[in-house]
Amino acid sequence: MIFEVTILGSSSAMPGWGRNLTAQLVNYEQQWFLIDCGEGTQHQLLRYKVRMNKIRHILISHLHGDHYLGLPGLLSSMQLQGRTEPLHLYGPPALSDILTTQFRASHTYMHYPLVFHPLDPSQPALIHDGETLTVSTLPLEHGIACCGFLFREKPHKRKIIKELLPPDLPVSGIIALKAGQDVVHEGKTLACLDMTQPPAPRLAYAYCSDTKYSEALVPQLVGVDLLYHEATFADDFAARAEETHHSTARQAAQVARLAGVKRLLLGHFSVRYRDLSPILDQAREVFAQSHLAIEGQTFAVNGPLSPS
Amino acid sequence: MIFEVTILGSSSAMPGWGRNLTAQLVNYEQQWFLIDCGEGTQHQLLRYKVRMNKIRHILISHLHGDHYLGLPGLLSSMQLQGRTEPLHLYGPPALSDILTTQFRASHTYMHYPLVFHPLDPSQPALIHDGETLTVSTLPLEHGIACCGFLFREKPHKRKIIKELLPPDLPVSGIIALKAGQDVVHEGKTLACLDMTQPPAPRLAYAYCSDTKYSEALVPQLVGVDLLYHEATFADDFAARAEETHHSTARQAAQVARLAGVKRLLLGHFSVRYRDLSPILDQAREVFAQSHLAIEGQTFAVNGPLSPS
Repeated sequence: MIFEVTILGSSSAMPGWGRNLTAQLVNYEQQWFLIDCGEGTQHQLLRYKVRMNKIRHILISHLHGDHYLGLPGLLSSMQLQGRTEPLHLYGPPALSDILTTQFRASHTYMHYPLVFHPLDPSQPALIHDGETLTVSTLPLEHGIACCGFLFREKPHKRKIIKELLPPDLPVSGIIALKAGQDVVHEGKTLACLDMTQPPAPRLAYAYCSDTKYSEALVPQLVGVDLLYHEATFADDFAARAEETHHSTARQAAQVARLAGVKRLLLGHFSVRYRDLSPILDQAREVFAQSHLAIEGQTFAVNGPLSPS
Repeated sequence: MIFEVTILGSSSAMPGWGRNLTAQLVNYEQQWFLIDCGEGTQHQLLRYKVRMNKIRHILISHLHGDHYLGLPGLLSSMQLQGRTEPLHLYGPPALSDILTTQFRASHTYMHYPLVFHPLDPSQPALIHDGETLTVSTLPLEHGIACCGFLFREKPHKRKIIKELLPPDLPVSGIIALKAGQDVVHEGKTLACLDMTQPPAPRLAYAYCSDTKYSEALVPQLVGVDLLYHEATFADDFAARAEETHHSTARQAAQVARLAGVKRLLLGHFSVRYRDLSPILDQAREVFAQSHLAIEGQTFAVNGPLSPS
């Protein structure tokens, strides 16, 4: 199965040192979600040869320009490339006003259904309920309305041990066993625990966009395999992080440690830092499984841990 | 003297084949004007090592996204880089609404004066009256309100032939001679035509953004040294050019020929064309001094003609 995240941008506020503004692409079993869409995201999709019209959902965490200014251009290019499939767009209510104002000025009429889902970032909410995956919001603390996104698989079914199955067991029996129920067949009880193996673990990816250090996040991140958490500054600008509602790399790592996630991705780097090794080193002092979320890299949600 | 144009983008509608969306930088004697600002323009300024805060004027020809979607990000980055100097922004009135809607959503307050000059593209108008340079609008025909921009030097003064000057001629006499007047000095008439050489020619650059073929433009382009004219399509898509209010390369060249400009720059290429040689060849069949306006190239307004 595929559940992975490709980084399209890692710079905060403005581009620099070859780093683009925030955007990530989540591929869950060929369902494509774009998270945030900084200026230049469509250029990055071209660069990494991602066909833009396979994206079905775009999630915008908040309305600071570095997280969404690439959206109008991308929506327009999707149209120019002949899109007819609906696109689901999630974001703060004002995003709809912004797009409407722009489309009106350019006399643009979308030829594909653009379905806007306004987000209220003050409360966690389920925003996508797929067959095997849910996406929920994670309220963040960033001075303006802002939320992260939690992608979590629904519980998998138990796995049948095929060799033990009576050949004439009807499909309804198999379904019941997979769902965890015992089944009576020809007078004999087939115990679920004997006939099946435990389900594969549910995987989860959490994207914590711009936020100050917040332990309120921790309970929502329990069971997360891969956590992206912004790490705008190293220790030298900890005061600036506090002032601007951002986090240091060390604080991001502390959230990862407290929540017990498996791996941490650090991103949203200030252009102050050409060299990101202080960011990585300071995070690893707190949480060994920390990585830099650099443009063009793809991370499997259940990827291997690095040797500690 | 310096009067030159640097191309920051040459693609129409969407980026492709390494070509960015429309933007150009005009340097007239270290006065910097940005013309149009497609998505990714701030990336291009970084790439070509142009310090963004030396730009004093931004001119937006019309509100199709490929000509202005890089503006909000650039304005914001100018602020992040500590700008305090005023910035003069010229564009259709709705541009102000678009920016206001975005700034409100992101709680952005500009720390430098952003002076917005609304344009009415239906009539040619003087929009900048500098000491030695004027900028005027050129009404274009593009389906939505759209104008080009004409940069024209003011007339230069005549050049004094220093060897002929009486050493005791007061400064007022020199100023009068330069202005074309004869001067009486110690009972003798100093004839302007004897004492001076003709002024340097006034140079002019014209930027014709998106437009269908229009001979109405021709009289306004007389005396232009360097003409940029969009050339979205080659002959194979002439019908599409007509339909979308764009021009073919051949039509751009025809405008250059009729106006008698010295050189022509072709740009705003459809992403249909990976190879631009048909665009260039077809233009040169009509007007030999045609060139492709490719990213990163700088063209002097009075640059050398190529051998014909």
